[in-house]
Amino acid sequence: MPPFRQVSIIGIGLIGGSLGMALRRGRLARRVIGFAQHEATVRRAKARGAIHDGDTELCPDWLGQSDLVVLAVPPDKVISAAREVARLTKHSFLMTDATSVKEPIVRSLEKILPSRIRFVGSHPIAGSECSGIDAADPALFRGAPCILTPTARTDRQALKQVSRLWKGVGGRIIELDPKRHDALAAQISHVPHLAAVALALLPEEAALSVAGSGFSDTTRIAASDPAMWGQICRMNRKEICAALERLIAGLVRLKTAVAAGSAGTLRATLRGAQARRLRFKK
Amino acid sequence: MPPFRQVSIIGIGLIGGSLGMALRRGRLARRVIGFAQHEATVRRAKARGAIHDGDTELCPDWLGQSDLVVLAVPPDKVISAAREVARLTKHSFLMTDATSVKEPIVRSLEKILPSRIRFVGSHPIAGSECSGIDAADPALFRGAPCILTPTARTDRQALKQVSRLWKGVGGRIIELDPKRHDALAAQISHVPHLAAVALALLPEEAALSVAGSGFSDTTRIAASDPAMWGQICRMNRKEICAALERLIAGLVRLKTAVAAGSAGTLRATLRGAQARRLRFKK
Repeated sequence: MPPFRQVSIIGIGLIGGSLGMALRRGRLARRVIGFAQHEATVRRAKARGAIHDGDTELCPDWLGQSDLVVLAVPPDKVISAAREVARLTKHSFLMTDATSVKEPIVRSLEKILPSRIRFVGSHPIAGSECSGIDAADPALFRGAPCILTPTARTDRQALKQVSRLWKGVGGRIIELDPKRHDALAAQISHVPHLAAVALALLPEEAALSVAGSGFSDTTRIAASDPAMWGQICRMNRKEICAALERLIAGLVRLKTAVAAGSAGTLRATLRGAQARRLRFKK
Repeated sequence: MPPFRQVSIIGIGLIGGSLGMALRRGRLARRVIGFAQHEATVRRAKARGAIHDGDTELCPDWLGQSDLVVLAVPPDKVISAAREVARLTKHSFLMTDATSVKEPIVRSLEKILPSRIRFVGSHPIAGSECSGIDAADPALFRGAPCILTPTARTDRQALKQVSRLWKGVGGRIIELDPKRHDALAAQISHVPHLAAVALALLPEEAALSVAGSGFSDTTRIAASDPAMWGQICRMNRKEICAALERLIAGLVRLKTAVAAGSAGTLRATLRGAQARRLRFKK
């Protein structure tokens, strides 16, 4: 028996599409429904085996028959999509999202959603610099940290079921308080993203032709969707600024050490970073 | 006919070992000799097919029979190794290096070396966060930018032959003035390295368990040899400080935009970085 009867995925881009493909390949849901803004996306998602059926408008019948609704729309559309799902249905079901920022989403949805919709915040730390259904990959979540952000108001059974969802597609479950999630995400995702952006813009044009794998790797994520990252920056502003300030301070210290030729300080910093990175090993 | 009769590689770590393997596989040299500090490295380099023979001491006979000597020792050992090779030989041959910093090396070697040793500075922009003969890979230079830094004093025939060396192992030749090389290398390699170091040190310990591919890619090179990078920072101090200052200024501008919620500025910066990175596409 698949753990889910019908899963509705709202937004079938990289994340929603990959989830649909993984659910179908892993036989985790009997039926996967997808909703997208454009008819072409729905067609492509069907062709790629991400969804059984779908539409460009949220369909109350399909939503009502679902035991799980996943919000995989851009960050600034999550709250309005959840509100719309609640308005169109009368049934009870699970709901989760896949947004990179959790505190404002979880706080809003706990206020907005009726109790029949049992929401659990999710953030699968998976992705790529590409976006859209064509970049979807059923293996995207394999081995990826999948953070769940339950609160005092979270239904324990719902938490178990959402945990089963991400485990089922290969994720490694980690539970975090939403605020704590946002602080850690700033450090390991949002600020590295902004650093990649600044690094991509650093070289003069002529330098690009001599760039190698170091530049390639450190800047890869700068090719990601600017609109989505603009929204993430807005939604996690405080934590991003705090972490960015620490990164800047770290770079200023490095610059001081390089300028002064402080071999000892520099070597100690380089060694600390090496040890850190080797401990992370990925 | 292979373009080289005998190539002596001084230092058979990642770069020297990879070069030896590529030379032998590509039949670019009839014989490859390797010199390393430790007997175990020489044995391992032979076993891996990187060299035909080798020793822990520079052997005047072997050096004298070489038409090309490659200095692949750590940055701070290049000048003393070149001096030693000159002292031990009386023959005429080509010499090149593979150091990440060019101006101080090229300037010194042009002063130190007798005219019978025709030196051309090289920097193959290839590598990995690993080091040592065990990480050597005959495909390391395939598609990599290989920078040659001729000066007014460089023998044109020697430049052609060194160009043939790096082309032969798969590199893409680019000629640059040594000073210009150091400025560009700071922008696309040395400062991205220091940024990776600062990013690796940014997250609190708990954040490492939730880090995904973004953190992994942006920090990969921070696992590289701290001693070598300390030397690079010392040798290219001025250019690194200038580029680091620009990176810091870029991050401060990003922080201001995030803090102020300047969606327009932020979006424009993210879009510019995306366009840059897509144009680089690697």
